[in-house]
Amino acid sequence: MADYKVAIIGAGPAGLTAALQLQRQGIPPLLLERHKVGGLLNNAHWVENYPGFVEGISGPDLVDLFHRQVERIGVIVTPEEVIAVEYQDKLFRIATNKREVVTKILVIATGTKARIFSPGVFSGNLEGKIFSEVFPLLKEEGKTILIVGAGDAALDYALNLANKNQVIILNRGSRIKGLSLLWNRVQENDSIKYFPEMEIEKIASSEKRSMDVLARSGSETMNFEPDYLLTAIGREPELGFADMEFIKQSEELQNQKVLYLIGDLKNGAFRQTSLAVGDGIRAAMEIEKQLRKDKV
Amino acid sequence: MADYKVAIIGAGPAGLTAALQLQRQGIPPLLLERHKVGGLLNNAHWVENYPGFVEGISGPDLVDLFHRQVERIGVIVTPEEVIAVEYQDKLFRIATNKREVVTKILVIATGTKARIFSPGVFSGNLEGKIFSEVFPLLKEEGKTILIVGAGDAALDYALNLANKNQVIILNRGSRIKGLSLLWNRVQENDSIKYFPEMEIEKIASSEKRSMDVLARSGSETMNFEPDYLLTAIGREPELGFADMEFIKQSEELQNQKVLYLIGDLKNGAFRQTSLAVGDGIRAAMEIEKQLRKDKV
Repeated sequence: MADYKVAIIGAGPAGLTAALQLQRQGIPPLLLERHKVGGLLNNAHWVENYPGFVEGISGPDLVDLFHRQVERIGVIVTPEEVIAVEYQDKLFRIATNKREVVTKILVIATGTKARIFSPGVFSGNLEGKIFSEVFPLLKEEGKTILIVGAGDAALDYALNLANKNQVIILNRGSRIKGLSLLWNRVQENDSIKYFPEMEIEKIASSEKRSMDVLARSGSETMNFEPDYLLTAIGREPELGFADMEFIKQSEELQNQKVLYLIGDLKNGAFRQTSLAVGDGIRAAMEIEKQLRKDKV
Repeated sequence: MADYKVAIIGAGPAGLTAALQLQRQGIPPLLLERHKVGGLLNNAHWVENYPGFVEGISGPDLVDLFHRQVERIGVIVTPEEVIAVEYQDKLFRIATNKREVVTKILVIATGTKARIFSPGVFSGNLEGKIFSEVFPLLKEEGKTILIVGAGDAALDYALNLANKNQVIILNRGSRIKGLSLLWNRVQENDSIKYFPEMEIEKIASSEKRSMDVLARSGSETMNFEPDYLLTAIGREPELGFADMEFIKQSEELQNQKVLYLIGDLKNGAFRQTSLAVGDGIRAAMEIEKQLRKDKV
């Protein structure tokens, strides 16, 4: 017997929206979140392309609105981490860090994790100095922060951190991949320096500053001595709890309409709150249709 | 030569969002709207499942926010009606009521039109008494309004109109298709009466009231004398400007990534602002990727 009709792993914009619509449809879901409600949206300095907020809104403020909206209609975010998932006898068995739960339908909305450098470039003890998310750095002041990347995330992080710090952006390529709108703001900002075609060769702990960073551009090398290094070199699907067996089954389970992958997890480079929200509503409506069909 | 890189037909939530993201990406689109900015969202009494608005928001207020947000970054809504579209020599030629424009990429976001009764049930002059959209009725007071339908739209219209009028809902089937949340509110409302399994047989103009409506349930018949009749019996894609030739080509043009159908137009019964918004952002991002690829 299933404990729940529907379980959702991940309470970012996609998971929260799926929960909102399921609850409205009279199908209260189990909503599991291991870390922070809102997921990666917490990292967004300023969201200008989520329709409804004329001047834009900060990521954390938008998360707060999403969270209060689902709480208002009775959705509870359960703070448990999913360790493993399997599908057997037409049911999903989910092992969390606290218990096992069984559900008929599973929605995975776990988003992405940051890509990181290969371990070979690191040397010495760099603990607490290298980050792949901006969140832990938001309260820093008067520091020098090196950002590696050239997409929307790198530019948004730079603009955010440059309010109170000096920022250096190293682009491994020559082309800016982020929006021209953000790039223009970066260029106008005196607290941000930009270097293209820079390959990081070594990141070593240092006596003087936090670290020594050696970068190469063709035959030239450059040294940087930042307090922190923040990587924004892309992200990949977060499916750490799923084993190969489950990943093999997952396409077939999606076709059977018992498994739904939504949000950043499946949207590749198109990491957008609007897409996550659309995915969440669509999954919830398909689930309602599916459960109604089963009943008849 | 193309006059525009991208033209969008329809300035509802999908079209507005596509325009927002295209403009941000440095690709100002031509955005055409024949009627009212916001499309069907103008009809929504209260939107509770668009994330970001904790207590919900009225459709017209949400439209106003969307509109101000796109205007703020320089998007202009062009008030022209599209009469015909054709694709020739790798370009779309769009005839509006004012001119011809040529575009490389076309986004169609024209939404849906209401399904109506077969003409056979009508008798006499009923002009101005039968509606398939709630909008023209919103200022009425003290009237009796008959609504035919049992989906979210019918229930939302009933709740909206019952503030100042008496409402009768006739459901052609026995099952309520709308959200249980809305249905509960309808049942609690003293100004709304509900009759299931009612087939409309005749709607005739009348001397006494606006009209006589004859409905049958099995062997029983009932007479109603409402001031207005509002149908909410489903909707179908609005593609009035497209001829058979264009409709035949459209799948192939979508595969070529020069044509994008977004929003209610393609979402069937899943008419939701969140889905339209997601569609709009996704189309804009795919278009940007496509145009960048062409340039290289």
